Amino acid sequence: MKNLIVQKYGGSSVADSIKLKKVAEKVSGRIKKNFKLVVVVSAMGKTTDNLIKLSKEVSNNPVPRELDMLLTTGEQVSASLLAIALNDIGIKSKSLNAFQAEILTTGDFNQARIKNLKIKKIRNLLKEFDALIITGFQGITEEGEITTLGRGGSDTSAVALAAALGAKCEIYSDVAGIYSTDPRLHPAAKKLKYITYDEMLEMSSLGAKVLHSRSVEIAKKYGITIYCGSTFSDEEGSFVMKKNIEQPVVSGLSVMDNQTQVTLSNLPLDFTLVHQIFEKVAKEGLNVDMISIISNSGLNISFTVIEDKKTHVSKALSQILKGMKGFNIDYSSGYSKISIVGIGMKSSSGVASQYFMALKDIPVKLVTTSEIKISCLVEEKYKDKAVKSLISTFEL
Amino acid sequence: MKNLIVQKYGGSSVADSIKLKKVAEKVSGRIKKNFKLVVVVSAMGKTTDNLIKLSKEVSNNPVPRELDMLLTTGEQVSASLLAIALNDIGIKSKSLNAFQAEILTTGDFNQARIKNLKIKKIRNLLKEFDALIITGFQGITEEGEITTLGRGGSDTSAVALAAALGAKCEIYSDVAGIYSTDPRLHPAAKKLKYITYDEMLEMSSLGAKVLHSRSVEIAKKYGITIYCGSTFSDEEGSFVMKKNIEQPVVSGLSVMDNQTQVTLSNLPLDFTLVHQIFEKVAKEGLNVDMISIISNSGLNISFTVIEDKKTHVSKALSQILKGMKGFNIDYSSGYSKISIVGIGMKSSSGVASQYFMALKDIPVKLVTTSEIKISCLVEEKYKDKAVKSLISTFEL
Repeated sequence: MKNLIVQKYGGSSVADSIKLKKVAEKVSGRIKKNFKLVVVVSAMGKTTDNLIKLSKEVSNNPVPRELDMLLTTGEQVSASLLAIALNDIGIKSKSLNAFQAEILTTGDFNQARIKNLKIKKIRNLLKEFDALIITGFQGITEEGEITTLGRGGSDTSAVALAAALGAKCEIYSDVAGIYSTDPRLHPAAKKLKYITYDEMLEMSSLGAKVLHSRSVEIAKKYGITIYCGSTFSDEEGSFVMKKNIEQPVVSGLSVMDNQTQVTLSNLPLDFTLVHQIFEKVAKEGLNVDMISIISNSGLNISFTVIEDKKTHVSKALSQILKGMKGFNIDYSSGYSKISIVGIGMKSSSGVASQYFMALKDIPVKLVTTSEIKISCLVEEKYKDKAVKSLISTFEL
Repeated sequence: MKNLIVQKYGGSSVADSIKLKKVAEKVSGRIKKNFKLVVVVSAMGKTTDNLIKLSKEVSNNPVPRELDMLLTTGEQVSASLLAIALNDIGIKSKSLNAFQAEILTTGDFNQARIKNLKIKKIRNLLKEFDALIITGFQGITEEGEITTLGRGGSDTSAVALAAALGAKCEIYSDVAGIYSTDPRLHPAAKKLKYITYDEMLEMSSLGAKVLHSRSVEIAKKYGITIYCGSTFSDEEGSFVMKKNIEQPVVSGLSVMDNQTQVTLSNLPLDFTLVHQIFEKVAKEGLNVDMISIISNSGLNISFTVIEDKKTHVSKALSQILKGMKGFNIDYSSGYSKISIVGIGMKSSSGVASQYFMALKDIPVKLVTTSEIKISCLVEEKYKDKAVKSLISTFEL
């Protein structure tokens, strides 16, 4: 369909009736320029958090299936209100929940994946309506069970719809684009005009929290360019796409606090044991990060987990290592992980050397690297110094 | 299915997480006595009012279709939370919205009527679950559009489910049953142990606001006895059924304030005109009540509307009577309508005479009667005196 755009508005963009009316005006402006719109909305403001809180008041461990029934009401509220606001200003529009839009997902409650989008109904409705408002974050299974795609999943709803409909994709929030690092913490952060899928995947999995990582995976798979802009300003945003036209060596920096480093030293030189350790940790649903293994006379393993999980990890490891002697375990908390990412690193030598030069006065606890990323672990008290130095070295 | 009960809990019974947990305990108690339950819930507390308020903030005239999308989220929240609370105490339960429960209605948004209940799915689920929690007040059309049954419609959802499933029906709220008159206004009001469908229909259409009148119509049609009780006390409630075992002459009294009396006098003796007047009024969606027509030399018509609609009625009548002369129109506001109702009136003579004796010192503006009801219109300042006198005369 010609002139079709999928737009997504985040929770803070539809947080109250005044903002909803402004979003309606923005949508209406596009329609007057001869576009048809599919608009994906998140729940209003803190709605999802409040619903989760409510569920915790009736159960410490809410059934995942019912939690999804509960949470999906949030997007139905914002979608229907936006449709009301649009009709009020003369735009023919209709809201659809996941049932009605037929967004089919797997049955993994709280973290379902989109399997199939039946776009025939949407295409037919677009003949009659100028804007369809679709609830983000949610889907249904073949059996009619309601699912959610995980926090931030509305981005994925939007990109999947754009891919299925062959439409442009625009994601709006209260931030004017994607920054080299978090602009709320580092006002000197630069806005990136372009960023590649791979860089974005490293950034979002590093806690930059700009886009749901599954949405970037889908965009990469189907070659959808995502425009990320500000809902309420005309400031130009950022494009997530295949190539970074500007090709800077390092595009971004991200920081993740509350890290605990777990170090096992002098383990016997037995890689079956390494397998057993990480299998156990995975079974317990623990996310480990920054794995580093060095073997010489014995085996030394170091990895990080978030501080909340320290006790859980410690229990799991005790079970695996029961009866074994002669090794040490150390748990150190209060660390921050600082990462730089950039597609240009692949082809540019000397990034590592610049990186370590920037950190020369800081005691680094652990370093891991990928093709387009270098991460280090430092005590939180050194965090600001390290970040400032990296921002200045790489002109972020 | 043996031992199947349909229960309905009103909004005040599920207003917060503490009350939801108490309702879960109540449901669990029944299940431990070897029952299976279908539980219909309303939205929590003032949720529906708040959602309507929100819709008015974005449009003075919200599209009915989208308003239903919006309002139905309320029951999905309470249904899923109750299912979470029940699972938390070990009761196998599952919530279903109208889509999932397949409650098919007409497409009259905001005031749909139930057409069909596909109970096969519910019956199958009851083999696996001990309690199914179903969103009240809502339905879907064959085309998958979401509808609502009008305010109070959850009663109708419950009675329709009980009729379709051949189950008992229990309706719980913060009032312990059905009273001869509103106990909040008249503490001397008596609780009725039994009341017939017809009496209940007259009571609810008279503003007693105990049961959604459509629910009573369905109960009457299918011979379902409705038990109305208190959610949080063991006090015995009331039964709405075919026969009133106690057969009192007058069962109840109800009062409706903010009435305007419209009187047209000295109209030409032309019943086509009467037809035109009421056709016009119906077309405008105005509810008229207490119609009284007396013809002698000319035609005298008197009827009541609620005060809010006075301007609307006056406009409609001006259009119809344009160009006509020689008649008078009078609008008098600040009136209350007081009605008594009782199936026993049919067979008991002298009720009218007792009624007028009770009101002998009060200037009555208008009187209308049906087989089981007498209503009068008085100035609001005489209301309390009239109600007290009627309560004492008929021992209500």
